[in-house]
Amino acid sequence: MLKFSCDYMEGAHPEILRQLASINLEKNDGYGLDEYSHRAAGRLRELCNAPEAEVRFLVGGTQANAVVLDSILRFNEGVLAATTGHINVHEAGAIEACGHKVIPVDANNGKIDIESLERRLHLIKAECDVVGWEHYVVPRVLYISFPTEYGSLYTKDELKSLRALCDRYGLYLYADGARLGYGLASPDCDITLPELASLCDVFYLGGTKVGALFGEAVVVTNSSLSVPRGLIKQRGAMLAKGWLLGLQFDTLLSSATGKFEDTLYYSISRNAVAMAQRLGEGLIMKGYRKYLDSPTNQQFFIADNAVLPALSRVVAFDSFSAYDETHTVIRFCTSWATTQAQVDELLEQI
Amino acid sequence: MLKFSCDYMEGAHPEILRQLASINLEKNDGYGLDEYSHRAAGRLRELCNAPEAEVRFLVGGTQANAVVLDSILRFNEGVLAATTGHINVHEAGAIEACGHKVIPVDANNGKIDIESLERRLHLIKAECDVVGWEHYVVPRVLYISFPTEYGSLYTKDELKSLRALCDRYGLYLYADGARLGYGLASPDCDITLPELASLCDVFYLGGTKVGALFGEAVVVTNSSLSVPRGLIKQRGAMLAKGWLLGLQFDTLLSSATGKFEDTLYYSISRNAVAMAQRLGEGLIMKGYRKYLDSPTNQQFFIADNAVLPALSRVVAFDSFSAYDETHTVIRFCTSWATTQAQVDELLEQI
Amino acid sequence: MLKFSCDYMEGAHPEILRQLASINLEKNDGYGLDEYSHRAAGRLRELCNAPEAEVRFLVGGTQANAVVLDSILRFNEGVLAATTGHINVHEAGAIEACGHKVIPVDANNGKIDIESLERRLHLIKAECDVVGWEHYVVPRVLYISFPTEYGSLYTKDELKSLRALCDRYGLYLYADGARLGYGLASPDCDITLPELASLCDVFYLGGTKVGALFGEAVVVTNSSLSVPRGLIKQRGAMLAKGWLLGLQFDTLLSSATGKFEDTLYYSISRNAVAMAQRLGEGLIMKGYRKYLDSPTNQQFFIADNAVLPALSRVVAFDSFSAYDETHTVIRFCTSWATTQAQVDELLEQI
Amino acid sequence: MLKFSCDYMEGAHPEILRQLASINLEKNDGYGLDEYSHRAAGRLRELCNAPEAEVRFLVGGTQANAVVLDSILRFNEGVLAATTGHINVHEAGAIEACGHKVIPVDANNGKIDIESLERRLHLIKAECDVVGWEHYVVPRVLYISFPTEYGSLYTKDELKSLRALCDRYGLYLYADGARLGYGLASPDCDITLPELASLCDVFYLGGTKVGALFGEAVVVTNSSLSVPRGLIKQRGAMLAKGWLLGLQFDTLLSSATGKFEDTLYYSISRNAVAMAQRLGEGLIMKGYRKYLDSPTNQQFFIADNAVLPALSRVVAFDSFSAYDETHTVIRFCTSWATTQAQVDELLEQI
Repeated sequence: MLKFSCDYMEGAHPEILRQLASINLEKNDGYGLDEYSHRAAGRLRELCNAPEAEVRFLVGGTQANAVVLDSILRFNEGVLAATTGHINVHEAGAIEACGHKVIPVDANNGKIDIESLERRLHLIKAECDVVGWEHYVVPRVLYISFPTEYGSLYTKDELKSLRALCDRYGLYLYADGARLGYGLASPDCDITLPELASLCDVFYLGGTKVGALFGEAVVVTNSSLSVPRGLIKQRGAMLAKGWLLGLQFDTLLSSATGKFEDTLYYSISRNAVAMAQRLGEGLIMKGYRKYLDSPTNQQFFIADNAVLPALSRVVAFDSFSAYDETHTVIRFCTSWATTQAQVDELLEQI
Repeated sequence: MLKFSCDYMEGAHPEILRQLASINLEKNDGYGLDEYSHRAAGRLRELCNAPEAEVRFLVGGTQANAVVLDSILRFNEGVLAATTGHINVHEAGAIEACGHKVIPVDANNGKIDIESLERRLHLIKAECDVVGWEHYVVPRVLYISFPTEYGSLYTKDELKSLRALCDRYGLYLYADGARLGYGLASPDCDITLPELASLCDVFYLGGTKVGALFGEAVVVTNSSLSVPRGLIKQRGAMLAKGWLLGLQFDTLLSSATGKFEDTLYYSISRNAVAMAQRLGEGLIMKGYRKYLDSPTNQQFFIADNAVLPALSRVVAFDSFSAYDETHTVIRFCTSWATTQAQVDELLEQI
Repeated sequence: MLKFSCDYMEGAHPEILRQLASINLEKNDGYGLDEYSHRAAGRLRELCNAPEAEVRFLVGGTQANAVVLDSILRFNEGVLAATTGHINVHEAGAIEACGHKVIPVDANNGKIDIESLERRLHLIKAECDVVGWEHYVVPRVLYISFPTEYGSLYTKDELKSLRALCDRYGLYLYADGARLGYGLASPDCDITLPELASLCDVFYLGGTKVGALFGEAVVVTNSSLSVPRGLIKQRGAMLAKGWLLGLQFDTLLSSATGKFEDTLYYSISRNAVAMAQRLGEGLIMKGYRKYLDSPTNQQFFIADNAVLPALSRVVAFDSFSAYDETHTVIRFCTSWATTQAQVDELLEQI
Repeated sequence: MLKFSCDYMEGAHPEILRQLASINLEKNDGYGLDEYSHRAAGRLRELCNAPEAEVRFLVGGTQANAVVLDSILRFNEGVLAATTGHINVHEAGAIEACGHKVIPVDANNGKIDIESLERRLHLIKAECDVVGWEHYVVPRVLYISFPTEYGSLYTKDELKSLRALCDRYGLYLYADGARLGYGLASPDCDITLPELASLCDVFYLGGTKVGALFGEAVVVTNSSLSVPRGLIKQRGAMLAKGWLLGLQFDTLLSSATGKFEDTLYYSISRNAVAMAQRLGEGLIMKGYRKYLDSPTNQQFFIADNAVLPALSRVVAFDSFSAYDETHTVIRFCTSWATTQAQVDELLEQI
């Protein structure tokens, strides 16, 4: 059966498997102190134009979010996130399990409503200045996802506005880049990797959903922050064979020209986005109604509940949320591995 | 200056000080294993008509909420609370610091919107049944405050509806009774202490704001729940001289007739409510505009920001929240110690 | 029955009750922002000759230890303590519940074995420098109690040695002073309060066991440390009526001359120590065998298990630990409230 | 250079890489709900003769220990472990970071001293029964490692004694099997996998050190225990592409005969042990002094510090601990990938 339900259904890009096989019996130092990890970190710093950035390779996204936020937040500090943000709804309370409150902020199509955020920050400050901050959770980090859980992208101007808000209210800006490649490779994206890196204090570039077997690369560009190795180990997030992460990112991020656009990571991301756009346009031609415009690898449609059973027999998709009593928002995902043949077959069959 | 800014500005009811002085040099066993604590727990069980209930005396409200919820919640379970609920906004993230998410629910005047809650629970269940509960925070407790942070009261019917929702969705019902006396002694209250006790799985009867120097009495009526002494100790919440708590509640809850209405706790609560109503009516007569109807010891008004400085010179009140650009919601509180002379003086001066 | 089982069996020094009664109906600001707390903090800074120290009043000892250590330790850092230290054995794992390991160190009669500690720190450093600190718990605080759980006292020279070790290995020195008065008022004590304050980075002066109803005064002398009010609130450790703490310490620490030796705290401590010495000497005269020399308010004896039942009928004491198969170490405590008549009655009856 | 410093320096057994490549572009369900994980869990249950056991596949050992223990321990409960146990010394305080104390117990060559443990449990119970368990950390789990960190093995009789102690004192028995294969495949091992499974309440069979790229298989045989998927997700320990774990264990645990001795896991473990014995005997022949007898894949020797630099130029080994001022305990590890040629080359060169 055709499967478009998510973007982590396949293994890894074949080049990664080749590389893993080629060094399989090499004896490497453990815990990320190997040369592949070192090299991959260097590549990432170069691609980000952030020569002093701290790079940490972790296994998964929830783990990355929890470790990064736990490294920053202290005492009664918390993290602001869209109500629809991954850390607020899909991580089983992982941030709270570290002791930190996620403060929900209004969002549209996955993106934080900047005016609403501004009002909220203004209000919190006004109230806390009077009553005393010790009674409240003090916002210290603004969490965004890029692209968002709805496949949408912040524009460069929006990111600058968020950055300005962060500066005004003493917040760190943290971008969850589980699908970062699918954002940066979108034709609608008006920001480069170095620009994103300089606007954020910390972000991660996701591998699990973009060509790797697993792995997320955390980049800390604000030199006053750090994700200590001791914290990573303590939270059970330090991979013994850390070179498995290093080698994968080294493979994904190699670039003959030194440009991000010439990495394997970028080219496979671009493919996924192109396939998603083809799929989206095709579905519209077939009469499907778009739920929102997504310029990345996720496509959202409104489907009549009556047609869902038949559709399910043809293709695996994701029932994202209820739209109304008789309709459902459904999601189709492409990935680095999606082929045009697969998309066309789907369009033919439905 | 006159002070009506909150209900914990005075020490304790004089009878409590007398009792404390009378046993001051007695040698009592520590950690709540004394006869006064034993006796007070017994009285409370009787007044609640809950002979098997577990009773724990704790020092403060945030501590009580944290210890109670931490005793119930496990793994990825969380607690539902009104967006305006004390645990969601005024406890510095104490529940999250124990590892548990507070899931905000729409509220009106401090009371959870029952229809909204029902939709929310339905939606969560529908989504989790499909995606898998392990990715979400599973609601396990419904937190309400009685009276609420806005002085409002749930009716008996509303509490029954909440109870029914809890039963349908496998939730425990927990009532924060920091101002429980001011609720139960309100003329608008249509529920008794035993009825409340039987509708909730656990609640606390507050002393700090109702006549005691400090202290909250947790009552666990659901026999499948327990707040272990080991947890209390581990969280630094076990008072060495536990009899100080026991004696205070024993004093507050003594009743010649065995009826709650004949306790000191009830009579001083009734006084506070009467004074609050007198104050509220007086302010309306003076032209102040009510923000909402509160039948308990807190009164909320909408004041023009221009008059606040002058008002502040006459009386201490609480700037509760912004109403609009030019008005503020202000709060006046009475307490067990408020006298008619104080209220009348305030009404005279403004 | 006579009771010498611990030093927190009575209420408070009568002068404290008088003061509480005298301001009972005053309306004070909450959460420790009142004038009594302000004044008490000032007195304590003066008595410690630490004009810049941060002072926090907390309710109990376990709470104080947990809040203080949690304010300092991060990530994989831990606290060194004597195997017999209160945080290691008698606090139900309160420090671990905050996420921090207590690293046990060999001790004699409650005092850390300095040579053993030095070897331990040397070894940890040697090992971690090779393997990588991220795999270990990094010692960051040295916890001592003064007096210790066995009533013993570190000499000034010993404290200087510990301080030097802390400086060499990058540790903070924290003294648990639950019974600080009984230590400083001991004729065997060769250190003053200002000296202790300057040798430690943070310590607390205990009230619960020394004349107060409850309360511990945390003094942070190292200006790079702080116990944030937001942490105190978050952990449920912020007393609503904070002036109850302030007033008690203000009463205990008033001194006409400005000298610690002229405070109520010191004079009642001295009484307890004198009574303990009288009791200890009396028991030796009666043929009891000392377990160790304690120059403070706790006295430890080795009793034949066969005599314990009879002894228990005369006096309440504490069965501290097993000595051997047929003997038990028992403890007698005096307190600020112990009278010579009580001691003499005990000596007469046994 | 020759490397014998640890047993996780190589990738995976080539058969695992082949399997991963063969299904690389298959689309699998995420989060461990795939058929490979299902099949591997089934195999493990069969091999353990525990048809009802719960099986969870996790990424690493520290993660497995933390998740398992956090699933069991509540409130003021703690876990007993050898002072040299991995959770006590080499996991950066991961268990404490979950809120639980590790209670150290005397050990010899990595094995818990059973008599000492018995005395300790007896003492704790005696003391807590008198003083009240709420002041202590209540032992609830006994953690052992099999083989231990020193390569040693408990005999079946010793395990039965530990089991009996656990039953007597209400403890769960948990075995850390990071190197389980190297234990069960040792000629000195007198226990089978099903026997181990039936003696423990929960244990894990390690993959990271025994042929897998990564992965540990937790087996919960006590039906009153469970490691909830929600906890795994919340702690960032749920691998998105869970089939990577399932497929690896399915490969390692396939057995034509259904017998553990015919699995790839067993045969590669046996090789490692054989190589280690060859290495150990060879070093003795060369005049090296054994530190202890290890019947598994780790070999410990006492080396003069003066020879370490030269030795380091020939082979990478592990400086395990100081033996005395002039000698060091060094460790050589073999793994599933170690060849006889490598061992013989080492023996030739030193």
